[in-house]
Amino acid sequence: MPRYAMIIDYDGGPFAGWQRQSQDQPSVQGAVEAALARLEPGPHTIAAAGRTDAGVHGTGQVAHCDLPRDWDPFRLSEALNFHLKPLPVAIVRAVRVADAFHARFSALERRYTFRLVQRRAPVTHDKGLVWQVLNPLDAEAMRAAAAHLVGHHDFTTFRSSICQAASPVKTLDEIRIETLPYPGGQEIRFHLRARSFLHNQVRSIVGTLERVGAGSWQPEDVKTALEARSRAACGPVCPPQGLYLTGVGYPQDPFAD
Amino acid sequence: MPRYAMIIDYDGGPFAGWQRQSQDQPSVQGAVEAALARLEPGPHTIAAAGRTDAGVHGTGQVAHCDLPRDWDPFRLSEALNFHLKPLPVAIVRAVRVADAFHARFSALERRYTFRLVQRRAPVTHDKGLVWQVLNPLDAEAMRAAAAHLVGHHDFTTFRSSICQAASPVKTLDEIRIETLPYPGGQEIRFHLRARSFLHNQVRSIVGTLERVGAGSWQPEDVKTALEARSRAACGPVCPPQGLYLTGVGYPQDPFAD
Repeated sequence: MPRYAMIIDYDGGPFAGWQRQSQDQPSVQGAVEAALARLEPGPHTIAAAGRTDAGVHGTGQVAHCDLPRDWDPFRLSEALNFHLKPLPVAIVRAVRVADAFHARFSALERRYTFRLVQRRAPVTHDKGLVWQVLNPLDAEAMRAAAAHLVGHHDFTTFRSSICQAASPVKTLDEIRIETLPYPGGQEIRFHLRARSFLHNQVRSIVGTLERVGAGSWQPEDVKTALEARSRAACGPVCPPQGLYLTGVGYPQDPFAD
Repeated sequence: MPRYAMIIDYDGGPFAGWQRQSQDQPSVQGAVEAALARLEPGPHTIAAAGRTDAGVHGTGQVAHCDLPRDWDPFRLSEALNFHLKPLPVAIVRAVRVADAFHARFSALERRYTFRLVQRRAPVTHDKGLVWQVLNPLDAEAMRAAAAHLVGHHDFTTFRSSICQAASPVKTLDEIRIETLPYPGGQEIRFHLRARSFLHNQVRSIVGTLERVGAGSWQPEDVKTALEARSRAACGPVCPPQGLYLTGVGYPQDPFAD
């Protein structure tokens, strides 16, 4: 059967996460599979690069599916988008790929961005799209703290207790902290890049860095926490609605023009 | 009575516009006045720099109010935000101003931004926050067209037939067209700046420039349309949900630290 890869964009707000649930819980995977079933008899099972949690967004999620018929990839994306309406899920791009391509197992890199808005007044347009904190943060202190986390480490401290990864040792290739103007405050974006992440790793890291930005932690405390290799040493895990899976890297980009 | 100026941020989606309506129509002005009435016996009437239309957003709207009591401006903004919940309206900043300050009549400059997203797949996170068009646009052609509109002109072509301004002659100080990456397409932001705008002027201009970007109009056609001084010569007026009042300029910035 021909295999297709798709870039999927979604607002995680109304979903219990990427992964299809056994019961009545809405999932992004379930929504895309239901749209596929409108095109070709199902059931369908799609695989994705990142199994994002409840409330986490995607702008560059990648998944693949096998379909009995030969579809023009552009027509496939248009037909899926038609059937996905009115859900906040969209197929940004579809391409035909080789049978050996696997959205999850072929991936060499995942990129996440976390949007934090710091201001007193409640956010209006960005409700559900950012994590809001009330007090000013010191971005330089957060950058100094983040530097301790980049590289090859045992990330037990920054890993959910229900994480199913075989090993807590991962290489974090980059944490870039960007500051942007925001009415009445500022926006801070954390850009993280790694081959793969542990469960809750990004939210554990951002929640801990926020404590550094607020002055409750010193940058060196993050190094101590990392070296403790203990979940108890982690700062608070921040909420999901600021987190976006923005892109996935493959040995050969299937979406390159 | 002490006078206060406020920067107001709102999602225009649920509102019939800035201006208080006679009947049951929700308005941003009405929402802020109702919150004020929770603090001090009303009725209150606030004046704003820009009377935005239904669906148009504000990130830097400025309004003023008079209150019998002396309020600490920070506490005033916090109290108003408490009473504005859960509406998507927030007081970003409040300051005490001189009695001579008038949010509307003292304003020397209004700044608007229009967000247009061009891509095939439906937008997800930005639903209600941008105008989406499906086909690629030529930003350079739009810039060439926009250059004909900057300066002192009779803008009858780009003015709603119900506009109540005394004269259609205005000076448009700037149209800056910014392009940004957007998953599966691109975002185009139009930044406009003038002492004041005619009713529907920004949306008439952006709707016309989109026709140029799509190739239906040549940049010179915009000059011809302007010189026609006829509403019939205008391109289509674009929808309100991409438009933001981002800031207001005064002889002395009341919000300067």
